[in-house]
Amino acid sequence: MINRRLVRGVLSVIREKTFQQTRGISSNKMDINKFGLPARFAGSVKSVWVEYIQLAQDFPSINLGQGFPDFGPPDHVTQGLKEVAEGENVLLHQYTRGFGHVRLVKAIGKLYSKLINREIDPMNEVLITAGAYEALYSTIVGHVDDGDEVIIIEPFFDCYEPMVKNAGGIAKFIPLRFKPKGEPTGHASDWTLDKDELSKLFNAKTKAIILNTPNNPFGKVFDMEELQFIADLCKKWNVLCISDEVYEWIVYKPHTHIRIATLPGMWERTITIGSAGKTFSVTGWKAGWAYGPSNLMKNLQIVHQNCVYCCATPIQEALAMAFEKEIEKFGTDDCYFFSLPKELETKRDYIVGMLKDVGMKPIIPDGGYFIVADYSPLESKADLSKETDKYKDYRFTKWMTKEIGVLAIPTTAFYNEANKPLAENLVRFCFMKKEDKLQKAGEVLRKWKSS
Amino acid sequence: MINRRLVRGVLSVIREKTFQQTRGISSNKMDINKFGLPARFAGSVKSVWVEYIQLAQDFPSINLGQGFPDFGPPDHVTQGLKEVAEGENVLLHQYTRGFGHVRLVKAIGKLYSKLINREIDPMNEVLITAGAYEALYSTIVGHVDDGDEVIIIEPFFDCYEPMVKNAGGIAKFIPLRFKPKGEPTGHASDWTLDKDELSKLFNAKTKAIILNTPNNPFGKVFDMEELQFIADLCKKWNVLCISDEVYEWIVYKPHTHIRIATLPGMWERTITIGSAGKTFSVTGWKAGWAYGPSNLMKNLQIVHQNCVYCCATPIQEALAMAFEKEIEKFGTDDCYFFSLPKELETKRDYIVGMLKDVGMKPIIPDGGYFIVADYSPLESKADLSKETDKYKDYRFTKWMTKEIGVLAIPTTAFYNEANKPLAENLVRFCFMKKEDKLQKAGEVLRKWKSS
Repeated sequence: MINRRLVRGVLSVIREKTFQQTRGISSNKMDINKFGLPARFAGSVKSVWVEYIQLAQDFPSINLGQGFPDFGPPDHVTQGLKEVAEGENVLLHQYTRGFGHVRLVKAIGKLYSKLINREIDPMNEVLITAGAYEALYSTIVGHVDDGDEVIIIEPFFDCYEPMVKNAGGIAKFIPLRFKPKGEPTGHASDWTLDKDELSKLFNAKTKAIILNTPNNPFGKVFDMEELQFIADLCKKWNVLCISDEVYEWIVYKPHTHIRIATLPGMWERTITIGSAGKTFSVTGWKAGWAYGPSNLMKNLQIVHQNCVYCCATPIQEALAMAFEKEIEKFGTDDCYFFSLPKELETKRDYIVGMLKDVGMKPIIPDGGYFIVADYSPLESKADLSKETDKYKDYRFTKWMTKEIGVLAIPTTAFYNEANKPLAENLVRFCFMKKEDKLQKAGEVLRKWKSS
Repeated sequence: MINRRLVRGVLSVIREKTFQQTRGISSNKMDINKFGLPARFAGSVKSVWVEYIQLAQDFPSINLGQGFPDFGPPDHVTQGLKEVAEGENVLLHQYTRGFGHVRLVKAIGKLYSKLINREIDPMNEVLITAGAYEALYSTIVGHVDDGDEVIIIEPFFDCYEPMVKNAGGIAKFIPLRFKPKGEPTGHASDWTLDKDELSKLFNAKTKAIILNTPNNPFGKVFDMEELQFIADLCKKWNVLCISDEVYEWIVYKPHTHIRIATLPGMWERTITIGSAGKTFSVTGWKAGWAYGPSNLMKNLQIVHQNCVYCCATPIQEALAMAFEKEIEKFGTDDCYFFSLPKELETKRDYIVGMLKDVGMKPIIPDGGYFIVADYSPLESKADLSKETDKYKDYRFTKWMTKEIGVLAIPTTAFYNEANKPLAENLVRFCFMKKEDKLQKAGEVLRKWKSS
């Protein structure tokens, strides 16, 4: 047997020699060592989405993975884009204002002025971004400096952590824990923040906290008492609140969405992020926004100006038209903001029943279009021995995709390394799918259970 | 009179006190000092575009500033977007593959495989970005690490410098100098790089050089000898070549666009950037791409995945259709890639004549849709005393907008601080505008000249 250590040693000497030769001397050979990733991207390489989109391609299955509808957006939304595309105004195919197409920021300013009961200046207090994703990026990279601490509540949308790292910040994590306020309800509201644990995370180095309500993946809708507690800590420690509210319209009764920016003393320290993709069921339009006080928004503008500069004009124009229509219908049953959660509540109730039926233990979401379920009662029926991932939920979801034909997302992807063990028994399903797809998923899961 | 120094001193003490009180203690007041821009954005704040778009709004004028057409893109391009918007495939409104919609990367891969005479792997060697702007950002931020040097040729598209700084890199500048290779031709080709000066910029710390051919704003099209000299230095010093070729199709005869990636030994060290906005006259669609070897593209993917994640699906689908159509017509007069420069050449010749006519000294561009002209022969006819900008070209363009009614862009915006004095007599006009707009500009400028 060859001595591996020796081989590695020799290879390393050869590599070093090549490195020296090519580093600024006369060889024409490409020294790829020089072109590694900058250190600030360490840990940003792996993406559960890249991995599971590939999995979906390699193993066709009923895909309840990524969060987007498999049905159409409201007609007037696509109709708007069509009108822009075929319209007379050729300038709608050219650059528009970098910080947001004027018609769109005005519509968004008008809507949120009403919602937060404060006059928003659309030209200075709203920024349009390439999806809520870029709004998060611009907020985090525009505010977090080297060594700043940022508090992240787990489970979290998985981009928060690499964005904080990329900005030179230090992410501090606190998981939602199963601590019902009274009798357990089976809902996401049973999962709460430990007040002491949260208070102890705040200190003079804390720059920001990232709040996500309704939360992805649990579907927890933070209530007034919880938000007030977070707000008080933000004020006490002079901390920025980054409020990711992309699922703001998808809230199930009796819960209501509370915007933390409306709490006393919070407007001036909150940046709120929204998504056209989630609001109008057009995730592929990749348009989002952030709103907040102009002094805090300034930082986002600089990052935005530096990385994408401006967003697609036809899409912004079409969205402006869509918002204008919904603002007119606001408060009526016709308004998509109110009809969408009703439609989704039926799907939620269906999937809750279905998952219970097959023996999983779902956490009933009060918002959003994801549901997390504990699959461990069924674990003995799955043969995970061929899967090699470190965490069991990865092994289970891969096995389930390949063998059962239903794709879900492992929940440890939404936790930092230290807390991943908390979520190894949980997987996430997206239920923003056509009824027949959900039913088909039910059929194959039931079949597996009774096999 | 109040002693201002004393007042400042007292204010500073008060601020400091407030700062101490709010930094982690019990006051509820917002301490805004904590929310300044992170250091890596120092110097990124000012943007000539933000300033001149505002100027255009405040003082209506004939706008030959920002680079976009005021006429429509080819019919089949907008038609494609319309078809997607009203089409049956609802998934075209949802997330697509993060590194690029499959149909689009395949079309782009096919086109460039032909153009660079090498089989491009569309899934690993092409990345779709939110405009060429984000392609530049992903390339620079994905490759430049703290302390790396990046060579930038002046005049340069003004985002290069803040992007390099943002990545922690050090920009090293070299201006094109008026050094004709033979008799002066009056064309941008009279402006060349000094070979010694360029050679001396390369060293062991050099990570990359940013090439822009055809160049904005001069319209210089780098010839084979120039590119070979740059390529040899890149190979000698193991340096990445970032080749911004967004104006690749807009080249005037007898010049031809040479892709530096096609030079021997350069594919493996070049990332080439292109723009749908420039290619199809749809700057507002904000779609661009980068192509290059997969090991170098990996870094871009990580940045892209971290800041925007994926690009708009309907726009990518429409662009894929547009590329497919042009690939079919490739080489014929009907192909937009060949008809566009012909159309623009007429406009270029018109504006060259017009600028000479009014007494300016234009540098005739061999590519792109900008023209830079020396306005100094007319300076005595302008009263710049009310303008307060540091550089004269800023004062002149602002005066010209307000008093003459023609908006152009100051050229010092395309130079680093040390070299701005080289460009104080130059302004940039965009001639990708309707004939009547160019004629109207001619009229008011002639009227001014003869006033």
